Amino acid sequence: MNVTVGGHSGPFRTVTFDAGKNSVQLIEQRRLPHEFKIVGARDFRQTARAIADMVVRGAGAIGATAAYGLAQGARAFRGADLGKFSAHVEAVFQTLAAARPTAVDPVNAMNGVRRDMARGQTVAEQQSLALAAAEAFATEDVRHCAEIGRHGAKLIRNGMNILTHCNAGWLAFVDIGTATAPLYAAQGQGKRFQVFCDETRPRSQGATLTAWELAQQKIPHHIIADNAAGHLMQRGEIDLVLVGSDRVLGRTGEVANKIGTYTKAVLAARHKIPFYVAIPLSTIDWDLQRGSDIPIEERDEHEVLGAWGVVANPKSEIRNPKSKRRVYVRVANPGSPARNPGFDVTPAELITGIITPVGIFPPKALWKQRHKLGFSR
Amino acid sequence: MNVTVGGHSGPFRTVTFDAGKNSVQLIEQRRLPHEFKIVGARDFRQTARAIADMVVRGAGAIGATAAYGLAQGARAFRGADLGKFSAHVEAVFQTLAAARPTAVDPVNAMNGVRRDMARGQTVAEQQSLALAAAEAFATEDVRHCAEIGRHGAKLIRNGMNILTHCNAGWLAFVDIGTATAPLYAAQGQGKRFQVFCDETRPRSQGATLTAWELAQQKIPHHIIADNAAGHLMQRGEIDLVLVGSDRVLGRTGEVANKIGTYTKAVLAARHKIPFYVAIPLSTIDWDLQRGSDIPIEERDEHEVLGAWGVVANPKSEIRNPKSKRRVYVRVANPGSPARNPGFDVTPAELITGIITPVGIFPPKALWKQRHKLGFSR
Repeated sequence: MNVTVGGHSGPFRTVTFDAGKNSVQLIEQRRLPHEFKIVGARDFRQTARAIADMVVRGAGAIGATAAYGLAQGARAFRGADLGKFSAHVEAVFQTLAAARPTAVDPVNAMNGVRRDMARGQTVAEQQSLALAAAEAFATEDVRHCAEIGRHGAKLIRNGMNILTHCNAGWLAFVDIGTATAPLYAAQGQGKRFQVFCDETRPRSQGATLTAWELAQQKIPHHIIADNAAGHLMQRGEIDLVLVGSDRVLGRTGEVANKIGTYTKAVLAARHKIPFYVAIPLSTIDWDLQRGSDIPIEERDEHEVLGAWGVVANPKSEIRNPKSKRRVYVRVANPGSPARNPGFDVTPAELITGIITPVGIFPPKALWKQRHKLGFSR
Repeated sequence: MNVTVGGHSGPFRTVTFDAGKNSVQLIEQRRLPHEFKIVGARDFRQTARAIADMVVRGAGAIGATAAYGLAQGARAFRGADLGKFSAHVEAVFQTLAAARPTAVDPVNAMNGVRRDMARGQTVAEQQSLALAAAEAFATEDVRHCAEIGRHGAKLIRNGMNILTHCNAGWLAFVDIGTATAPLYAAQGQGKRFQVFCDETRPRSQGATLTAWELAQQKIPHHIIADNAAGHLMQRGEIDLVLVGSDRVLGRTGEVANKIGTYTKAVLAARHKIPFYVAIPLSTIDWDLQRGSDIPIEERDEHEVLGAWGVVANPKSEIRNPKSKRRVYVRVANPGSPARNPGFDVTPAELITGIITPVGIFPPKALWKQRHKLGFSR
């Protein structure tokens, strides 16, 4: 998407590959929203570290980063010995896979690259195929998001107020994003609308990443406290809710997503406001039987007990803080502990539809439509 | 309630009066939870400034502070001329009333003091009656909160998990508080229970003030993000919700309270969790016809766009930050604006009961019971 900040102007992807320098180029997401910076990972170890250290985050984005990292590692091999090359590629694969051990996307993406590479007869051919496969993975990710946008944009009418939660934006994918894709597509069609970004405590991805994305794209938006959405719905100020998901159960239509999503779905149902979940097909889990079986990560309490930001004068510097250096402040009473569940599960009955690259489906229809949705067993 | 922090140990009220020094003694609430400090307002102008600058906040607490401030001003008068004395008292009254122009409690409290004073025949008698009236106001406030606690404690059973929102604790009154009163009373009866404190963004009164109160009283508690309550209810981890209120409509049973209260009530109703609102009788508005007529204050956006806290290392200093100096950090994307409604309105159908000093009532029964509840017209 377009970025226009301090010296940078023009279209960007979250992750790209510089073939000349054999370098993976990443938006340094830990600096956002206070600073926009591109960092180059010059070998596969640096790429693995960038994944581990959250320079890059989000399902599609870390998948593409790992795919590029595998190609990068393969292309750094000097020699023609296929046996030694295979052992080297295996080591690269393991290093990248270990960078985010619970994520499924990097491994899936690298398996695809490895499958394509295997068609090469020589080291040079395999190296070349590896890069082509990584580029194809990234392009597919973008294409899927564009299709989500094409389907989802039909839900957006002129003058609508749309609520989002957390960030399933282009920063979480290679480009365009999932929950944000319908917004960008509708904007491209000339539709006018406003977005409310839930702050999304405790990590504030809505206030930081989604708001940053929308500001870059010049989409009118306001940040709200997570507490405010119910009041705005009650006063008729929200017409549509769009969120992403970490896992959708193909058998039940239940949706796991960032903590607070369930609350917004309950409120939307009470006020008869359509609630949609935008996902790539890789997010559908066809195996799990019940949403209550989804493990809910309990994250570190310091996220709830404080906040990250740049020190600023709340009156004079609110639009343009002088500092760009993020610090952590302890907000809560120093003696008190916190609970910090990272995700929640929303039942199908509260969800109007699942927006996928192949169309919009009622959540309970996923299983019936499983072949159309790429379930091959 | 009891306070045990840095040098201070023992029972405290939010506001007291030092008759020897003619000084209003206040807990400096802007320093909490990072520092506990008592400040003395040595004349009525300092007392008015303490109200205006939020050294003291909360309905009961600012009512008592204004009552003491009026007595303080009256007692500072030198001479025996009743006419000059009356003019002086009127000036004191106006100064204190102007400190928080939208609040009704200071004016109501001071009117009571003035009524009692009028029974005196001399300046000295009136000065003496003024202090007695202010002390009586504070004592009444404490007694009402104690009665709320006595009634509300019946709702608490051993092993319960109780959710609170914002701070309607003893810091908002002279002592004991309203939403917290049942907790303190139940603790006094030897009941064991746990509390979840909603963080209560954007001003975080749950994470700061309520958590501080509960920590001082040694009541087991965890702070949670406002987003987490729905998930905890879904998993059966919350048995009761207790909140305060800024205004309860006597005619409809609707409840205006801190933004996010409505959301918690919707979630509690879905999960069939009892939802109670604790208030003194002065919170009931017998005139207003509809909750939608309650003006909802739109507060400054800097509250949503950032947070106040002390700079700390999130790993090593999380329990005991070295700094005590609060700073503001801008969390959100610097280019983005915010909406910040400060309150919301919860309909009677979502509320199990209203806990008052004279008993617990279904919200829709208030009007029928209005004479018992002190409505005199």
